[in-house]
Amino acid sequence: MAKLVFIRHGQSEWNLKNLFTGWTDVQLSDKGVEEAKEAGRKIKKAGIEFDQAYTSVLTRAIKTLHYALEESDQLWVPEMKSWRLNERHYGDLQGQNKAEAAEKFGADQVHIWRRSYDVLPPLLDENDERSAAQDRRYANLDPHIIPGGENLKVTLERVMPFWEDHIAPDLIAGKNVIVAAHGNSLRALTKYIEGISDEDIINLEIATGQPIVYEMDKKLNIVSKEKL
Amino acid sequence: MAKLVFIRHGQSEWNLKNLFTGWTDVQLSDKGVEEAKEAGRKIKKAGIEFDQAYTSVLTRAIKTLHYALEESDQLWVPEMKSWRLNERHYGDLQGQNKAEAAEKFGADQVHIWRRSYDVLPPLLDENDERSAAQDRRYANLDPHIIPGGENLKVTLERVMPFWEDHIAPDLIAGKNVIVAAHGNSLRALTKYIEGISDEDIINLEIATGQPIVYEMDKKLNIVSKEKL
Repeated sequence: MAKLVFIRHGQSEWNLKNLFTGWTDVQLSDKGVEEAKEAGRKIKKAGIEFDQAYTSVLTRAIKTLHYALEESDQLWVPEMKSWRLNERHYGDLQGQNKAEAAEKFGADQVHIWRRSYDVLPPLLDENDERSAAQDRRYANLDPHIIPGGENLKVTLERVMPFWEDHIAPDLIAGKNVIVAAHGNSLRALTKYIEGISDEDIINLEIATGQPIVYEMDKKLNIVSKEKL
Repeated sequence: MAKLVFIRHGQSEWNLKNLFTGWTDVQLSDKGVEEAKEAGRKIKKAGIEFDQAYTSVLTRAIKTLHYALEESDQLWVPEMKSWRLNERHYGDLQGQNKAEAAEKFGADQVHIWRRSYDVLPPLLDENDERSAAQDRRYANLDPHIIPGGENLKVTLERVMPFWEDHIAPDLIAGKNVIVAAHGNSLRALTKYIEGISDEDIINLEIATGQPIVYEMDKKLNIVSKEKL
């Protein structure tokens, strides 16, 4: 039975500052580092041995993965990073203070941007210095697919090819896989594997730094789910 | 012009204890961590932007790579780990104190084991708990190729396929590559790319934590070499 472990990165410096983050490449806070190490100790205690690790191209998820692997004595596990596992792109909201945005656009509008399944945030222009189009790590992407802003629906659509091409084949082959990623890329994957509706996914929260362990059969049916 | 950067991991805990290390998976010392971070700062100052990172499956090299990438703001660079970049396997000497080995086997014999190009160390039995055959990270290797001990010649022979299949194609494609590895796997690569003789390679030392930057043309001729 293959194990699939999700881990959402620990607290970041912009969580602390109450800023919309999205694809902005911010650091883990000290608390976030500790959360990641603790996750690794839980994985070690549970005796989970990975065959493959996946993460995004954002530092806070990569470091969470590295701490978790190191603390569980398996930093040597093969690792692949992909933009497809990135956090939801928050468009022009990235870098804005959440409270100030509520004052500027109204609390209801901000709530819709944050919680709706298919409403896009204000888009970021590709010439904006905050745009991924200006960032070397996305230089090999088709410019037409670099997002200016995403909702959860769009996030799910760009995460799915990674599931299909990498994670699912590993699980079918019986490999144990860890995915260190973000609140919304993990919500998207969870929506798919658990078959959660568009309405119900709105209420799903994934805790930071807490490993979620699925056991899956060869047909990718969930046999068990446990939070460490 | 593609850049190839070699970095030998910083000081390890077993360097400090004067033990033969080889494939033993020991940690960096505090000094080793600082050497790796300093290497990253030098890479950042030199403005070197990587497209691909390679390292061994040994923690001390992986962590050196991660510190160097993080300090140069490019932890997101794709990373691939391979046993082919491991340190020379030191056979049954692994875990023995170098001074005690000199008393036991004679200083001349130990000198030959350490410095000759093609003399093998005493071999480690595959049933020994120190053997790589007992280590999960080598579980996918053909059991017949798991070494019981290597000289520099054998180390070079198992490093070369990695050069041919990964590093060389990247450089020919114009990519900038970092290889974070070990004294002897890097000496092996250096012997090949610089065309050093079996006799002269004995005298080549590679400093810990110091990035060595080659510029190479499309024919993989060295255009420049600089130590940062």
